[in-house]
Amino acid sequence: MTDRLHARYLVETPLKVEDAAAVLAGEQSSGTFVAVPGETDALKQRFSARVEQIELLESVGEPSLPGCRGGAGAFQRAEIEVSWSLENIGFNLPTLISTVQGNLYELSQFSGLRLLDLEFPSEYQKHYQGPRFGVAGTRRLAGVVDRPLIGTIIKPSVGLSPSDTAALVQTLVDAGIDFIKDDELMANPPHSPFDDRVAAVMRVVRDHQQRTGKLVMVAFNITDELDAMLRHYDTVVQAGGSAAMISLNSVGPVASKRICDRGQLAIHGHRNGWGMLNRCPMLGMDFAAYQKIWRLVGVDQLHVNGIQNKFWEPDDSVVRSIEALRRPMFGGYQALPVVSSGQWGGQAPETYRRTRTIDLLYMAGGGVLAHPGGPASGVRALNQAWDAAVAGLSLEEAALGSPELAQSLAAFGGAAKRTPSERKP
Amino acid sequence: MTDRLHARYLVETPLKVEDAAAVLAGEQSSGTFVAVPGETDALKQRFSARVEQIELLESVGEPSLPGCRGGAGAFQRAEIEVSWSLENIGFNLPTLISTVQGNLYELSQFSGLRLLDLEFPSEYQKHYQGPRFGVAGTRRLAGVVDRPLIGTIIKPSVGLSPSDTAALVQTLVDAGIDFIKDDELMANPPHSPFDDRVAAVMRVVRDHQQRTGKLVMVAFNITDELDAMLRHYDTVVQAGGSAAMISLNSVGPVASKRICDRGQLAIHGHRNGWGMLNRCPMLGMDFAAYQKIWRLVGVDQLHVNGIQNKFWEPDDSVVRSIEALRRPMFGGYQALPVVSSGQWGGQAPETYRRTRTIDLLYMAGGGVLAHPGGPASGVRALNQAWDAAVAGLSLEEAALGSPELAQSLAAFGGAAKRTPSERKP
Repeated sequence: MTDRLHARYLVETPLKVEDAAAVLAGEQSSGTFVAVPGETDALKQRFSARVEQIELLESVGEPSLPGCRGGAGAFQRAEIEVSWSLENIGFNLPTLISTVQGNLYELSQFSGLRLLDLEFPSEYQKHYQGPRFGVAGTRRLAGVVDRPLIGTIIKPSVGLSPSDTAALVQTLVDAGIDFIKDDELMANPPHSPFDDRVAAVMRVVRDHQQRTGKLVMVAFNITDELDAMLRHYDTVVQAGGSAAMISLNSVGPVASKRICDRGQLAIHGHRNGWGMLNRCPMLGMDFAAYQKIWRLVGVDQLHVNGIQNKFWEPDDSVVRSIEALRRPMFGGYQALPVVSSGQWGGQAPETYRRTRTIDLLYMAGGGVLAHPGGPASGVRALNQAWDAAVAGLSLEEAALGSPELAQSLAAFGGAAKRTPSERKP
Repeated sequence: MTDRLHARYLVETPLKVEDAAAVLAGEQSSGTFVAVPGETDALKQRFSARVEQIELLESVGEPSLPGCRGGAGAFQRAEIEVSWSLENIGFNLPTLISTVQGNLYELSQFSGLRLLDLEFPSEYQKHYQGPRFGVAGTRRLAGVVDRPLIGTIIKPSVGLSPSDTAALVQTLVDAGIDFIKDDELMANPPHSPFDDRVAAVMRVVRDHQQRTGKLVMVAFNITDELDAMLRHYDTVVQAGGSAAMISLNSVGPVASKRICDRGQLAIHGHRNGWGMLNRCPMLGMDFAAYQKIWRLVGVDQLHVNGIQNKFWEPDDSVVRSIEALRRPMFGGYQALPVVSSGQWGGQAPETYRRTRTIDLLYMAGGGVLAHPGGPASGVRALNQAWDAAVAGLSLEEAALGSPELAQSLAAFGGAAKRTPSERKP
């Protein structure tokens, strides 16, 4: 608990780390190249950013980023912690973001700078409600209790008409899926107008609900300009839907919060574009910091990639993301980790072994729709994989008594065995 | 002119560039690891992203980013151009952003990927109005015709009360400044509530206008959550102000567009956080792409850093940014480049020599307020520096007949001679 805003950075600098850290703190509380009149010591004392801690790490021979000035030879890495008074910021989320990222990445005193983590002032919990649904609310809406939610994505990403989409949704709800989402490329295009798609899909979903009692959660991609997003939101509410999806980085924190604040739908947060902020090891930010901002915004479900994913990200990083998202903030504010990318169930044992949780939304695309026995077998195979994971069985062991999982293993098991030929530069 | 959306990328890959480019295009139009039912050839033909061009560049021995898989030995760099049908996206700016940045930065087929430039479908000009004020409108509002606008930033960034701020603004308007902006760290904090600050500052500005006829443009930092931003906007309009500032990356494109769409104030776009997207040479994006998105949003004034700036960015990059921002989009949509960071006038000759334009908002902080002869001398010195620049004189030549510029040169000239000891890693 703190009454200040704290940020932890990984830095690399040719200067003395104390000196570079002081420049960073100065840039974020005064910020000009000469002292100006009016900048009294009393003001500085009250409003200056404070360097709270410096922990030296290794030193390297080459700068990680271009444009660094001063010093020579070695580049020292360190973790530093900086804090700001709440009085600088008030309850103003975008200005908080500017405070911790500011012009800092531009500073020539650093050859590397990465935001590792954030701690919000404890006052923030009075002002920000956080996820309205989160883990418990999503489970309640979807009616799934003691296992991960099994989800899938409408594919192909673009091109399907509303009736094509509804037909696919029919197949998926019949297969027993818990959750379906639009792709991030599919929002409100001419060939599938949002309102028509919602109407067609929700007819299927509501009909299924009437027959079975189960309301499959569909995260319609409401990403659009603001008035359109608000309209789309209302359309989903009026059609009896329970969720909506936003491309968080493309929409931005302010409009995303406006959407979350409505509080009638679970908000599925897609992090497309995230690699830009994360893939350079000495720039950008860690997911630990990123996810806290989005929990403050109020996102209920947040993408974390998946174990043995098809993308560049190592498993360790995915595990850290899931752990970060599950760690309580102000004692709660929990959002549901969305596991995806090349998942077909085969990754369930390792995912469970490393995270010890079933509070996940486990997304499989091809793993459901391309299952040799059809989508219903695909969904069954995913649940079998998770049962095995929790029971501590290997896939091979579980497959002996689970024919659908055995089929998945035969069909998709090869892809899972790809190992990265190279993970680090 | 194009009826498709085009994006140009710098890529680095251990694979054949054609193969890697095909994966990129596939991810952005289908995006699963196995073929799924419903993905017909006709759909693919109509909606697939198209690789339009591949231009091979050098090959390097080490990957620029971690996590790349496949291939061995050399990493080929190339520029590739990809296009999408407008039918995929419609008029939906955040989804357009997701389309060009998508999960692309995550792809393990690449050891480097950077968005270089964008070309919007020509239909977009019917839907997006772009900057409402831009270069001509800002000039008109500020009453500045045949020279750059001279601006400054309220410093210290945080800590000043509304009456302190108003007193500083009094000094600045008396000094003859054209433009004043809040710092990005100063929005609506407890010690300087937005409404009080606007009231106090606009009293000074309006009084000055009544006496001199000149309405100094003040870009109040309205950055906040959405409803607060809209309220702040109205407060400025009602107080007779002409501009407002937003921290673009912290607010995001959707809420920023909502603000620009109101059309009553010139919008000053601050790019704090930009280094995160730009400083790693083989990740993120070039300013050429970034600024087009914000011109489509409707931002009137956009930060470009400055020649010989205090940050990491090389002059060549700053010059390219100014050129990109000045290049017409749909034959217009021009936004005013905001030159800042360590500027005191000394950089004017080089800025003009390399860009040949006076359509700039030239921002100096210490260069005005810390001028040895006082702020009025600081503003005069900045105008003298620009007169010299346009006349093709060196600072030293101009200083002979310009005592205020001579004082600046003596006071700040040392700082300008700092050269980066190292610009590239």
